[in-house]
Amino acid sequence: MSGKQSKTVEEEFIEFNIPEVGPDGKELTKTARKKLLAKAKKDAKRPQQTQQQSKQKGEAVDSSAGNYGTLPLIRSQERTNKKFSRVQTLNASNVGETVRIRARLSALRDQNRFIFLTLRQQSASIQAISMKPNSNQMMNFIRKLSVESIIDVEGTLASPEKGPVTSTTQQEVEIHVSALWLVNSSLPELPIQLEDAERPYPLIAAQKKEIKSIKLEIENLQKKFANAQTDEEKNAIKTEISLLEKKKADAQKYVIIGKATRLDNRVLDLRTLANQAIFRISGGVATLFREFLTKENFVEIHTPKLLGTASEGGADVFRVSYFNGSACLAQSPQLYKQMCISADFDRVWEIGPVFRAEKSQTRRHLTEFIGLDLEMAIYEHYHEVLDLFDALFVFIFDGIKERFAHELEVVRKQYPTPAFEYHRPSLRLKWPEAIALLRENGINWGDLDDFDTPTEVRLGELVKAKYGTDFYMLDRFPLHIRPFYTMPAPDDPVYSNSYDFFMRGQEILSGAQRIHDPELLVQRAIEKEVDPVTLKDYVNSFKYGAYPHGGGGIGLERVVMLYLGVPNIQYTSLFPRTMVRLTP
Amino acid sequence: MSGKQSKTVEEEFIEFNIPEVGPDGKELTKTARKKLLAKAKKDAKRPQQTQQQSKQKGEAVDSSAGNYGTLPLIRSQERTNKKFSRVQTLNASNVGETVRIRARLSALRDQNRFIFLTLRQQSASIQAISMKPNSNQMMNFIRKLSVESIIDVEGTLASPEKGPVTSTTQQEVEIHVSALWLVNSSLPELPIQLEDAERPYPLIAAQKKEIKSIKLEIENLQKKFANAQTDEEKNAIKTEISLLEKKKADAQKYVIIGKATRLDNRVLDLRTLANQAIFRISGGVATLFREFLTKENFVEIHTPKLLGTASEGGADVFRVSYFNGSACLAQSPQLYKQMCISADFDRVWEIGPVFRAEKSQTRRHLTEFIGLDLEMAIYEHYHEVLDLFDALFVFIFDGIKERFAHELEVVRKQYPTPAFEYHRPSLRLKWPEAIALLRENGINWGDLDDFDTPTEVRLGELVKAKYGTDFYMLDRFPLHIRPFYTMPAPDDPVYSNSYDFFMRGQEILSGAQRIHDPELLVQRAIEKEVDPVTLKDYVNSFKYGAYPHGGGGIGLERVVMLYLGVPNIQYTSLFPRTMVRLTP
Repeated sequence: MSGKQSKTVEEEFIEFNIPEVGPDGKELTKTARKKLLAKAKKDAKRPQQTQQQSKQKGEAVDSSAGNYGTLPLIRSQERTNKKFSRVQTLNASNVGETVRIRARLSALRDQNRFIFLTLRQQSASIQAISMKPNSNQMMNFIRKLSVESIIDVEGTLASPEKGPVTSTTQQEVEIHVSALWLVNSSLPELPIQLEDAERPYPLIAAQKKEIKSIKLEIENLQKKFANAQTDEEKNAIKTEISLLEKKKADAQKYVIIGKATRLDNRVLDLRTLANQAIFRISGGVATLFREFLTKENFVEIHTPKLLGTASEGGADVFRVSYFNGSACLAQSPQLYKQMCISADFDRVWEIGPVFRAEKSQTRRHLTEFIGLDLEMAIYEHYHEVLDLFDALFVFIFDGIKERFAHELEVVRKQYPTPAFEYHRPSLRLKWPEAIALLRENGINWGDLDDFDTPTEVRLGELVKAKYGTDFYMLDRFPLHIRPFYTMPAPDDPVYSNSYDFFMRGQEILSGAQRIHDPELLVQRAIEKEVDPVTLKDYVNSFKYGAYPHGGGGIGLERVVMLYLGVPNIQYTSLFPRTMVRLTP
Repeated sequence: MSGKQSKTVEEEFIEFNIPEVGPDGKELTKTARKKLLAKAKKDAKRPQQTQQQSKQKGEAVDSSAGNYGTLPLIRSQERTNKKFSRVQTLNASNVGETVRIRARLSALRDQNRFIFLTLRQQSASIQAISMKPNSNQMMNFIRKLSVESIIDVEGTLASPEKGPVTSTTQQEVEIHVSALWLVNSSLPELPIQLEDAERPYPLIAAQKKEIKSIKLEIENLQKKFANAQTDEEKNAIKTEISLLEKKKADAQKYVIIGKATRLDNRVLDLRTLANQAIFRISGGVATLFREFLTKENFVEIHTPKLLGTASEGGADVFRVSYFNGSACLAQSPQLYKQMCISADFDRVWEIGPVFRAEKSQTRRHLTEFIGLDLEMAIYEHYHEVLDLFDALFVFIFDGIKERFAHELEVVRKQYPTPAFEYHRPSLRLKWPEAIALLRENGINWGDLDDFDTPTEVRLGELVKAKYGTDFYMLDRFPLHIRPFYTMPAPDDPVYSNSYDFFMRGQEILSGAQRIHDPELLVQRAIEKEVDPVTLKDYVNSFKYGAYPHGGGGIGLERVVMLYLGVPNIQYTSLFPRTMVRLTP
């Protein structure tokens, strides 16, 4: 802001337009006026240039005065009930209408006489153009706005002259700006650029791969150089290396944001179109889960997360200081949802956090995740539960496709993945069939050995190749690899009435018929080295008449990750928690 | 179990009907037969008498053989797809049909030639009668069943001869039993009787009050006795005391189950009709909350419960061991739901556990409860949030009445409370109006003093008397009693843009416009003695363009408790957690 050479206070009063009389009509003291002057000077130092300040600069009369500027901090000073439109609702049928929008300034392209603005609301965006008759002062104000600022834009909705706008979601309309107010400014320097955060994953992967291979070539040449005998040879290698160095520089087209940087700046990262879509789909999965189960007469429950004892065995449990004693965080609602069956709720579901102090740092582990749990009384056979789960998953998969077509498209732009394939009814395999399939394909696996991750993934590929489905249920797990409360199979002591489900070859659900006989339960706990004393309330709950029952628990973040083909589970948790991450 | 005097093994083989030939047609060894005998003897010791055992006792031929007995433990041995009916669907239109039901044996009344059974499924019940032509053996088997056992009953649906059955929910029909199988037996001795757990609260309260007053009378007489001068006087007092002792004994009509006993045996306690209804209503409140917000374009979020720092101030926070470091449990999703607004989600809701290490042991405090939280961007004024909340609460209150009429009736049988009254739109008072109302009624309260609980409750009574509503919103709280992130009022520095909602005079929601300006936020944190260093990620989230926003958090258990008039919040939490309770 210009003209700040030493001036008298009176000159500054004039320059900064400090009134002589207050709002109450009374003359202001010099001290009061000086206070106002100090405030005006402070305001003038802000990066944004308001209409008032333009005036003060002694420029030509501002024909746009009153149509732009910085709004005071919104503290509910007044309520005018101004109407604001939502970007996603605007289309060609609105052309000619005057609209008002509050949105994030997503991008700004200054072409001098035209300033193109991209306005973003969640996963919808629209182009706005400021041009004549907007004054030069207004144009200058706009071109200095920081991207990611929140602005109010008023203008006329028009059809884009040069055809559909390809860079925004609302392609048939644009806004010709008549007024623009800065609501809340972003700092001009962003820790990460949304453009970088949104870049399609294959482009990044390809760039990483290319650079890695060039680096390898250079390393090899450097070794060759060290062994070179003649100067001629050496010079030739040098030239080759410098060409490769240039090639490497050229290959670095994109800024690649590492996972840690992305998650350190999660609030900005979550603004990307893909993330806006991912978390709407995540909410959708939960909604579909609830809808289906409510129709099936399930009751919502909330079981405690603070427990007196680590009831599913002491490993992987977080300990909490509890007043003068201690508590544990629930590793699942398992025992409590079963107790709700003993408490006559018949069919229950819960959506809530699950805490696992696992020292795994894989792509699919979180220390806190959202469990979608259900438990139900059965009449005769645990396949009653499998039937229900089957219909539930088909309902969820169908629902995602039907209700989130736009979001799926948006996510696939950043993470292109083949559409998720599934059967109806779902494919069900028995444990021995899975072992046979592995062996047919040259993997020599023990009859009752638990899968490691690579084998699990390989099995998923073989299932996909043979049956054409990304989703299957694996039934009848060996008893020795299941928790103590799993019902042993009635016909063969090495198997159990239990199952896992898999999406794209990775486990997303574990479940079983549970033991509802207190004696058998205690016996199995002892065999599995779980102290029955810690299970007192749980075991007792089956002593006063217990229904046969079964159920399972789904990991929400895994379902979303695997359905969408997102590369890491931390990207499907809003604020992921791992062994090494507790912030933001 | 007669006839166990010393017999030869061969005699016992005959008595216990031990076969000479196995299922494979081969003759059994004596050892094998002895094993079978041992098993048969063990079975005979069980309280239930099966058809086989009846036969063995050499009684007359059992005409009901094959129609009753104890089923083996259901381990999914087979799947016959037998059809089972639900109690609540049975009505007069089904008379004459044959039905099969699996239910809990809720009560058994043996009238020798008729055995009346009450079968219960959740909050529905039906009467079943066993009589001729069922055999004596079958009648004997049935009369020995423990209540709370799970049984399968088959029979014909009939109209009750003597008119509607008043003791069950299905009053127009009863089952004439033709077959009955014990699925899972309850221990015969229950730690609490459901009849006692279900007794209407006023009866218990009246009994308690009466006994207390008799005890007081006795104490007074005992004092009088100690001071009595003459034998005549003493004898008169003695007579009076013994009359009162008798009166006291007579007054103890009902077994009163204390809160601790009730909660120690929560699985049994939850089986009461009122509890079955309470938790269906609780799920209903959550469903109504979600339905309304989904229609209003809110997005479901799940924010982390494990935090790196105690971000809302260090008091009342639970500490967790986190691998080699430590973490805190979230006292609310407050900061994270706001960060989701900065992350462009526009409008968000969360239902999840909230952890408070408060040392309060009142009727309305839990250390873990379910928060129904929402946060939304606003355009101009935080009353946009109040308007939304207003419509939301009316929707919830209407929804409970419409969808849970049966459950309300059931709860009111145990906890009779006047129907919940509310206005549409809801009553809104400003803080100074509340103070004025208190003063008008002789309570001298400071302009800006926070309410203590008795004053809060008294205010609720005054509001109810003056306006006729059990629900109201109190707006414009003094700034000094609100958290640091509350937006100060624009027109008066002592007030803030914040509000609480009350049901039957008790707070169930707290909310506000939040500060979205990072500088003001830090300034207010310092003024409130919260270390801004612990708020880094939160404050930073407002630096890159922040929407003005507001919201609030609802305590689910409180809403249910106060709507229903249940006397303690621990009764509206499935497995409540308090300072002194971490089990079951």
